[in-house]
Amino acid sequence: MSQAEDKSTKSPIEVSIPKAVVHRLSLYLRELQHLVREGNETTSSTTLGSRLGLTDARVRKDLAYFGQFGHPGIGYRCPELMGEIKRILGTDRQWQVAIVGLGNLGTALMGHRGFADQGFRVVAAFDCDPGKIGSKIHGIPVYHIDTLETVVRDARIKLGIITVPAKAAQTVADLLVAAGVDGLLNFAPVTISIPTGISKVGVDLAIELEQLSFDVVNRS
Amino acid sequence: MSQAEDKSTKSPIEVSIPKAVVHRLSLYLRELQHLVREGNETTSSTTLGSRLGLTDARVRKDLAYFGQFGHPGIGYRCPELMGEIKRILGTDRQWQVAIVGLGNLGTALMGHRGFADQGFRVVAAFDCDPGKIGSKIHGIPVYHIDTLETVVRDARIKLGIITVPAKAAQTVADLLVAAGVDGLLNFAPVTISIPTGISKVGVDLAIELEQLSFDVVNRS
Repeated sequence: MSQAEDKSTKSPIEVSIPKAVVHRLSLYLRELQHLVREGNETTSSTTLGSRLGLTDARVRKDLAYFGQFGHPGIGYRCPELMGEIKRILGTDRQWQVAIVGLGNLGTALMGHRGFADQGFRVVAAFDCDPGKIGSKIHGIPVYHIDTLETVVRDARIKLGIITVPAKAAQTVADLLVAAGVDGLLNFAPVTISIPTGISKVGVDLAIELEQLSFDVVNRS
Repeated sequence: MSQAEDKSTKSPIEVSIPKAVVHRLSLYLRELQHLVREGNETTSSTTLGSRLGLTDARVRKDLAYFGQFGHPGIGYRCPELMGEIKRILGTDRQWQVAIVGLGNLGTALMGHRGFADQGFRVVAAFDCDPGKIGSKIHGIPVYHIDTLETVVRDARIKLGIITVPAKAAQTVADLLVAAGVDGLLNFAPVTISIPTGISKVGVDLAIELEQLSFDVVNRS
């Protein structure tokens, strides 16, 4: 793995960007995709902001972390800004993704069309249930977890989604890292340890409900 | 519905709290739950922060939005701080939750143990598939969507999880709001409109992958 070389060609962003800003980039991208589907060629920070409950200043400040994307007298050109945001998010390319653990959630995610729409192609799934191995779910082949390293390397899979039970999550993370993935999306309810240089995002769906209950209890 | 009266008894938080801070409250709560399971009675902002990749100053600043929870010479008492965070998040009570739409994802969420662990009890699910109605999935009864208003009112369900396809999401949101829910967690890949006074959180799982690819591409 030559990640240091890789990075020098990818012009990484030098300033530290708040996570909330990166999250909003995804929201801006979704709204731009809606705007284009609705036939809009251009938009403004006011339009983008109002569709997301944000001020136009917030939108401009977020985008200013990454460059100057507006045009005087025009605003933002939707396809151009979409392209810029995809480049920033790293979704201007296709990512090959593996899902490990085919319980209810893993199986659901195999059929999640939103992933492919944003450039994430689930190309392999892993489990240890003999009833599933060798089959295809949503057109995606299911392999035995013992073959993970070979399959992940051969298919150039760089992102792994972990949907195994908590007690198996660290083992699966180690396997995926050993197989050369660069990032892990972890749905298991446990914090996994990863080596420096590997990225991880933990998804805890109860957090989403907690954010909702906070809002219900505290809204004014 | 007497939401204005409700709110006056719930001591809503007056200052505007950044969403990222509320999100981190959930993370602090999870770490405190781990610490208690590991046998710790007390902890510090340094310990909490280091387990989450945050500075101790960040932890203290986040908690300071809501009050003063540390004790000189002791730090934080884990059970006490857990109680305070639950109170702030509104999870010091039990929430009755409904799931609408029993495709792969809805079915997966019905069995998601992380919800119950945090005080969210899924007590009813709705679909329009005759093969599912009248059955129980993970012990939760499945009702026809036509009976939603009655079931939601009778079971005092205040939060609804939407896992229907995009084209049905607004209709389902309207049904849930008419039935008296206070908050909606929307997994459908579409922005739903809700009346003022109702809370919503949209979950877009591709965003989690985008945050991961951003980190992979830009990490230094």
